[in-house]
Amino acid sequence: MSLQDVLDQIDSDLPAATDRLLDLLRIPSISTDPAYKADCDRAADWLVADLNALGIDTQKRVTPGHPMVVGHLDGDGPHLLFYGHYDVQPVDPLNLWARDPFDPAIEDTDKGRVIRGRGAADDKGQLMTFIEACRAWKAVNGALPCKLTFFLEGEEESGSPSLVPFMKENADELRADIALICDTGLFESRVPAITTMLRGLLGEELTITGPSRDLHSGMYGGPAINPIRVLSGIIAALHDDTGRITVPGFYDGVPELPDALRQQWQGLAFDHAGFLGDVGLDTPAGEQDRTPLEMIWSRPTCEVNGIWGGYTGDGFKTVLPSEAHAKISFRLVGTQDPHAIRESFRKMVTDMLPPDCSVEFHAHGASQAGAFDISDPAFEKARQALSDEWPDPAAYIGCGGSIPIAGHFQNILDTTPMLIGFGKDDDQIHSPNEKYDMESFHKGIRSWARVLDALTKG
Amino acid sequence: MSLQDVLDQIDSDLPAATDRLLDLLRIPSISTDPAYKADCDRAADWLVADLNALGIDTQKRVTPGHPMVVGHLDGDGPHLLFYGHYDVQPVDPLNLWARDPFDPAIEDTDKGRVIRGRGAADDKGQLMTFIEACRAWKAVNGALPCKLTFFLEGEEESGSPSLVPFMKENADELRADIALICDTGLFESRVPAITTMLRGLLGEELTITGPSRDLHSGMYGGPAINPIRVLSGIIAALHDDTGRITVPGFYDGVPELPDALRQQWQGLAFDHAGFLGDVGLDTPAGEQDRTPLEMIWSRPTCEVNGIWGGYTGDGFKTVLPSEAHAKISFRLVGTQDPHAIRESFRKMVTDMLPPDCSVEFHAHGASQAGAFDISDPAFEKARQALSDEWPDPAAYIGCGGSIPIAGHFQNILDTTPMLIGFGKDDDQIHSPNEKYDMESFHKGIRSWARVLDALTKG
Repeated sequence: MSLQDVLDQIDSDLPAATDRLLDLLRIPSISTDPAYKADCDRAADWLVADLNALGIDTQKRVTPGHPMVVGHLDGDGPHLLFYGHYDVQPVDPLNLWARDPFDPAIEDTDKGRVIRGRGAADDKGQLMTFIEACRAWKAVNGALPCKLTFFLEGEEESGSPSLVPFMKENADELRADIALICDTGLFESRVPAITTMLRGLLGEELTITGPSRDLHSGMYGGPAINPIRVLSGIIAALHDDTGRITVPGFYDGVPELPDALRQQWQGLAFDHAGFLGDVGLDTPAGEQDRTPLEMIWSRPTCEVNGIWGGYTGDGFKTVLPSEAHAKISFRLVGTQDPHAIRESFRKMVTDMLPPDCSVEFHAHGASQAGAFDISDPAFEKARQALSDEWPDPAAYIGCGGSIPIAGHFQNILDTTPMLIGFGKDDDQIHSPNEKYDMESFHKGIRSWARVLDALTKG
Repeated sequence: MSLQDVLDQIDSDLPAATDRLLDLLRIPSISTDPAYKADCDRAADWLVADLNALGIDTQKRVTPGHPMVVGHLDGDGPHLLFYGHYDVQPVDPLNLWARDPFDPAIEDTDKGRVIRGRGAADDKGQLMTFIEACRAWKAVNGALPCKLTFFLEGEEESGSPSLVPFMKENADELRADIALICDTGLFESRVPAITTMLRGLLGEELTITGPSRDLHSGMYGGPAINPIRVLSGIIAALHDDTGRITVPGFYDGVPELPDALRQQWQGLAFDHAGFLGDVGLDTPAGEQDRTPLEMIWSRPTCEVNGIWGGYTGDGFKTVLPSEAHAKISFRLVGTQDPHAIRESFRKMVTDMLPPDCSVEFHAHGASQAGAFDISDPAFEKARQALSDEWPDPAAYIGCGGSIPIAGHFQNILDTTPMLIGFGKDDDQIHSPNEKYDMESFHKGIRSWARVLDALTKG
C-alpha cells in the first residue's frame, strides 16, 4: 500500500476523526485548578482507551500530580516517541466566550471551518493529529512502520511538576531516536515549520503584606503602608525606560543573534504590523532596538500575568488592604539560568521592600531555553515531507513560547526533539474562544502520515 | 421625671435594645452591590416601622438609588435632626470572618462584651444608640423634649449619590437648628469626642486597555504592551520618594495646621506606636515630616483601594491581559477641590499612557473636606454632657475618614452639624469581624439622653 492510500484514508475518515476530537474536548481537563482533578483523570482514561484500541499497549501512570499516559508498540525501523499534553488552560474570563468552552462545535467562519472549544488547538487538537495519522496508517497497512512510544502528560499548562522526575525514573523505557512534539504552530499561520528555538519560562507568584489586617483608608490612609502601592512600585521597577529588564544579572547568558539566523528570519518577511495589528496594537513595546520577531524568538521578557489586591467588586470600598499579589513570568533565551534569575529576582524584590512590609514567594516552574541541533538528517526528511503537504516550503523557526519538555528529551533522555505543529496565530490559545482550524487538523493528520513515511522508509 | 430616670430606663432596657439591634444587623443591606437592593429596602422598612412605633411620623422616600428614611415629630424647643445610615460595607474577604457577617451575636472577649457582625459599628449600632435614647426618654416622660427630624440614608457606603439632590429638593422640610450625626468614634477608643474636622473623599476607578484581547505571553510577551505594567507604573508615580502626592495642583488648598490646634492635638497624647502597632506596623509611611495624627486628621492622601488584572486564580496562566483595573481614592483636607483634582488626576494618567494604551475612568463620589464652627453654645453643652457620662472629659477632634453629609448640612440646609459617635479603633469597620463594644452601645445610648437633656433644657 502506498502513502497515497493512507492520505486517502485520512480524507475519508475526517468526519469520524473530528467527532473523536470533539469527544475529547468535552472533558474539562484544566490542570491548574484542583477542582478539575477528576476531569484530568478522565481525559487520561480516554486516551488510554483510544491508544489501546489502536493496538498500542497503553497505561495511565500515576504521578504526584495528574497522570501520564504512556503507550508502547514494538516494531522495526527507527524508534519514534510522540509527545503531547491532554490538559488545557483555565477558561476565565468565561463571560467573553461566545459558547461553553467545553461544549465544542464545528463553526463555519469567514476564514473557513474551525473547531471551537478550550484545548482545540492547545493541545488536544494537535495531539490527535498524530493519533489519527497512526489510525489511518494502521487501517491501510495493518501495522505501523516503526517502533513507537506515546508519552502524553496532563500538567503542561501548570509547569509540568511531575515531568522531570517521571522522565528520570523511566529514562530507559522512554528513550527513543527522535521525540516528535506537537505543540507548536505554522509560521504566520501558513508556512509549515519545525521549531528549533524555544524560550524558557520562569514563574513566580508573590504576596506583599503590609498591615496585619485590612484597614479603613480613612482611619489609616497616610501613616499605614499600602501593599498595592509597594507592589506597583516593584513591578514598575522591573523594566527601565528602554524596556530592558532590571533584575541584576538577568541578561547573563543572553546571546546575540548570529548574523546567519538574523538573515534567515529577515527572509521570512514576518508581517510585524499585521502581528500587532491583529490584537489592536500599533507600536512594538519592549526593547526599542529589536524587531518584534527578534523579541519573540530570541529575547527574554518579564511579564505580569496577574495582579490582585483590595476590593475588586462592583462599586467602591475604601479599604487599605493587608495584602497585594502578583503572578510574574520570565521568558528566557540562550543559557540564562532560571534558578539564578529566581534568586536574583527575589533578592531584588526583598531589597525594595519598605519597613513593615514582608513578601512571600511561590515558585511556578523553571525551564531553560532550548535550541536544537538540526544536523540529524531526519530534520531534512521531515522538512521535505511537510513541504510536500503544504503550499509553502517548510521552514526552521523560533518560538516565543516555552516547551520545556523539548530540552528534557535532549538532556534527560538523550533523544532529539523535533517540534512540528499546525496551530495558527489567531487560534486564541490561552484566551476565550480558542479554536483550531479544520485545515490545521486535516492537513496536520496528513502531514504526520508523510513524516512517518519519510522517517521510516530508510 | 429626671434625667436619672431616663438613664435607669436605658440600663434596664439594654437587653431588649440589644435584641432590636441584632434584628437590624441580620439584614444584609450592602449598598454597593446591586444584588442586595431588596435587603437595603428591607432595612429601610425596619427603621420606618420602628420609628413609627415610637410615635415619629416616618416614611420611606424613593430616590434613584436606595430609599431615604425620613421621620418627623413636632414639639417645642430646638429643632434637632438626627442622621445615620442603614447601609453597610461589603463583607469580602468572607473567608476571614469567624462567623456569618449577617448572623450577628454577642461575644465575650478579653476586652469585654462585643456585638459582632457587619454594620455593628458602621453604622447600625451607632444609629440605634440615638433611637434607643429617644425610646427610653419617651417611656419615662411620655414625650420627647423637642422638635425632631430623623434622616437616615442607605447609600453612605457607596458615595451617597442621591443625598445632595434629595437634600436640595427637601431643604425646607429637613432644615433644623442642629444636625446630630452619629458615624464617628471615641478618641483613642476612650475619650468621648465631638469631631469638628473631616477629610473629603474623591473616588476614581480606571481601566487601562492595551491589546484588544488577552494574549499568550509566550506568543506576544515583549512586543505587546502589558496593561498591568502600565497601571503599576502609573500607581508608582502617584507618590514621590518623600511620600508626597504628585498629581499636579493636588496640594492647592491644603492649609498648614494652626499652631493652637497642633498644640491641642499634641495635648491629646495620641499613642502613635500603639495606633500602628495594633495593625502590625512600626514605621509611619506617608509624608516623612508629619506625625501620624497630623497625617490622618489634617493631611491629604492617595490610596489604591483595589487592583486587578490578568489571571488571579490558583496556579499559573501565562496570559498577557487586555485590561488592568484599579480603584483609587483621595482623602482631601482644607479647601482642596475634588473636581479640580479629578481632572488633574485624569490628565496625569492620560499623559502617562504609552502608545496603544487607552484608559477609561469611572467616578465614585467627590466630597470636600469639612471643618465646623464650634462657636454655637450647643457644642459646649454637648461636650459637658458627654464628659458627664464618660471617665474622661470630652474633646474636639479631627477624623481621617470622610462624612460628606456633614458639609452638606452646613452648605445646603444651613444646619450646624455636630458629629458625636462611640466607635472604637479596633471595631474593624470595613474589615472582616466588625464589632461594636457593648460599652459603646450602652454608654452611647446614655450619652444621647444626656445630650438631649443638655440641648433642650434651655
